[in-house]
Amino acid sequence: MQNISKFTNILEKNRIEALTDGIYAIVLTLSVLMIGTGLYSGSVDSSTFYSSLHEAVPQIFNYALSFVLLSIFWVVHHRQMNSIVHVDSLYIWLNMGSLFFITLIPFTTNLNSDFSEYPLAVAIYAANIMVISLSYTLSWFYAARGRRLVADDLSDSTIQNGIWRGLLTAGVSVIVIVAAYFIHSEWATIFFLLIFVGGFFIKNPKPTNDPT
Amino acid sequence: MQNISKFTNILEKNRIEALTDGIYAIVLTLSVLMIGTGLYSGSVDSSTFYSSLHEAVPQIFNYALSFVLLSIFWVVHHRQMNSIVHVDSLYIWLNMGSLFFITLIPFTTNLNSDFSEYPLAVAIYAANIMVISLSYTLSWFYAARGRRLVADDLSDSTIQNGIWRGLLTAGVSVIVIVAAYFIHSEWATIFFLLIFVGGFFIKNPKPTNDPT
Amino acid sequence: MQNISKFTNILEKNRIEALTDGIYAIVLTLSVLMIGTGLYSGSVDSSTFYSSLHEAVPQIFNYALSFVLLSIFWVVHHRQMNSIVHVDSLYIWLNMGSLFFITLIPFTTNLNSDFSEYPLAVAIYAANIMVISLSYTLSWFYAARGRRLVADDLSDSTIQNGIWRGLLTAGVSVIVIVAAYFIHSEWATIFFLLIFVGGFFIKNPKPTNDPT
Amino acid sequence: MQNISKFTNILEKNRIEALTDGIYAIVLTLSVLMIGTGLYSGSVDSSTFYSSLHEAVPQIFNYALSFVLLSIFWVVHHRQMNSIVHVDSLYIWLNMGSLFFITLIPFTTNLNSDFSEYPLAVAIYAANIMVISLSYTLSWFYAARGRRLVADDLSDSTIQNGIWRGLLTAGVSVIVIVAAYFIHSEWATIFFLLIFVGGFFIKNPKPTNDPT
Repeated sequence: MQNISKFTNILEKNRIEALTDGIYAIVLTLSVLMIGTGLYSGSVDSSTFYSSLHEAVPQIFNYALSFVLLSIFWVVHHRQMNSIVHVDSLYIWLNMGSLFFITLIPFTTNLNSDFSEYPLAVAIYAANIMVISLSYTLSWFYAARGRRLVADDLSDSTIQNGIWRGLLTAGVSVIVIVAAYFIHSEWATIFFLLIFVGGFFIKNPKPTNDPT
Repeated sequence: MQNISKFTNILEKNRIEALTDGIYAIVLTLSVLMIGTGLYSGSVDSSTFYSSLHEAVPQIFNYALSFVLLSIFWVVHHRQMNSIVHVDSLYIWLNMGSLFFITLIPFTTNLNSDFSEYPLAVAIYAANIMVISLSYTLSWFYAARGRRLVADDLSDSTIQNGIWRGLLTAGVSVIVIVAAYFIHSEWATIFFLLIFVGGFFIKNPKPTNDPT
Repeated sequence: MQNISKFTNILEKNRIEALTDGIYAIVLTLSVLMIGTGLYSGSVDSSTFYSSLHEAVPQIFNYALSFVLLSIFWVVHHRQMNSIVHVDSLYIWLNMGSLFFITLIPFTTNLNSDFSEYPLAVAIYAANIMVISLSYTLSWFYAARGRRLVADDLSDSTIQNGIWRGLLTAGVSVIVIVAAYFIHSEWATIFFLLIFVGGFFIKNPKPTNDPT
Repeated sequence: MQNISKFTNILEKNRIEALTDGIYAIVLTLSVLMIGTGLYSGSVDSSTFYSSLHEAVPQIFNYALSFVLLSIFWVVHHRQMNSIVHVDSLYIWLNMGSLFFITLIPFTTNLNSDFSEYPLAVAIYAANIMVISLSYTLSWFYAARGRRLVADDLSDSTIQNGIWRGLLTAGVSVIVIVAAYFIHSEWATIFFLLIFVGGFFIKNPKPTNDPT
């Protein structure tokens, strides 16, 4: 039995973590490449310098928002991997799926940043965040259901906590999309703050299933 | 003897893995930089915003295709490394050769994405995929032949499985090239789906050589 | 108790290090992308080749300055992690905060490099350095105060040394900002050399609190 | 004593390796970003497509050359780290110095690739390679001299082998510079093949200093 796991297709956790951390590191850094591109679009004189710099400010805020959301996802992935005892082929592909949508973040961040007057641009960004959170929720559901890939004594409340938190982020993304179309597209992303508000209402998991 | 391995030129598996994972992380993320460049080519008004966004859709599909193919290669590399017990100098250079062609993927992906009306552009992309799969097949053949770098009890069917899977991807790439020239260049890459079809016909390896 | 730490929210040091090292690797390399962009802005003849190359020289110096400052921060982060025994949620978020400002370095380096005739551009760069050093000082203060996350026998002088070094870099950044406005903006960054001068006056920490 | 090493300034080998592997992964991949930029400089019709593609061929060869040279340096660094038992502060800074010149490779590769008709462009590229090899030779000399950072029983011939190989690459770089000015700048980099020729004349190290 150990032979099977060793020589056929069990992939170790640590290389998934290495690839994931590498992709997060790149995506966290990449969006910054687009900041201040107005400054490099030709000859710059004093007035264009200050106006271009002024333009860069909302770009930095949008980049910061993506940085915070990606950090949350990274911590979520981290917690999942800490609970997971072994991985199987389907879990790896679910993980690759999540990573695909994470690599789209620099593109959708720039879309949201440069075209926030179009509700569609903001909605694409929020939809990207929604898909990532649903994807991580699905991964966790797959791993935890029936204790498939996690420790047998992992508490029910830890499992439920992971699912609720994923659904919270997805739900908040829907609110942002609605707000982009019906309230104000340029300020809609401020509703992402609801993730932190909502977090207070999700009770912390009990470590064990003990009846105490 | 241990002295030799320690102080001359045995390079450990884990650093090869670190470099490989790093390069995969970058290549998986890099192509996205080209998505939606039409959106940044000057002043954007309402009509150009929607038409540029429309243009980005096939780019995202082509990027997704590369993401899937690279993920397959990453899993293949992973399985090879899991079976390999030690590495030698030639294996490292075979690995660097594979990595070279992997780093060309962002360039050939963009070629395929932006010039898919030219069969040559699609063929270059498919040829890149073909060379990578042949390169990994060669690495595996070198490592497994005579159990050179793998465990002595690795089953024959595991070794053959690796070779067949590599040849499958290379063969499918040839079909894509032919399709690009003789059927329709813009839809030729859809034949890459044959990798999944073909995968069903390759029987899973038996873990051991036991006669049972 | 161990159950709690395992299954809820203790994140291991090594993944924080992996993400941090990945981001440093990218940021250390990224600024170079902007070097010599003048060379690619159109058709290049003999005279523009030499003049563009000439332009690249100060860019390389500014990139080298960022490389040195980032290297210092990387070593600082390294020392902190070496002393830290375990991490908690707040420390991770302090770390992500530091990383955010580190990812801004390629942008502010280019700002400083291409617009050094504007004191504001130089000041933004120096402010970025200042915020990073204050952020690391805060992380260290949080981790070390009351031996919260560090070993119980970590000496007082090691803790104070970390704080003094952080404040030194922050203080030197303030000097650079003042120099950019009141002395000469294009030469103001030379005052960053004061970090090395100031380093001589910070006494090395004693390893233990032993009265000897 | 162990306390000192733990809590003051000994930095572990593995994090230096992580940062180094990350930077190599990025630099190995980065140059490819410049390949085929002619294809994206505006509206592309059939004739410009083929001529731009034709232009990309020498770019790919120049990128391949950098890939091979960087791979050699990576293997060299790897061998050094395998022999080194512990690291000190100066070794880390020598390592950061090498990395600085490695991060310049994408810039100098593009310079060499796009302006190979100027001897100066080729010479800058070769000088970059020369500085990297001298830098690694110096690191090795520092680490190995008096067995400062390496094992006490490391053979003399292993130490000398590392130094000779470093000087070989540096010497070949000088030949390339001379060839760029006095023979033909566009073909001068072919002399880098002398590294492989020269490698045959450097005898492999004996693992031990035993008189046998």
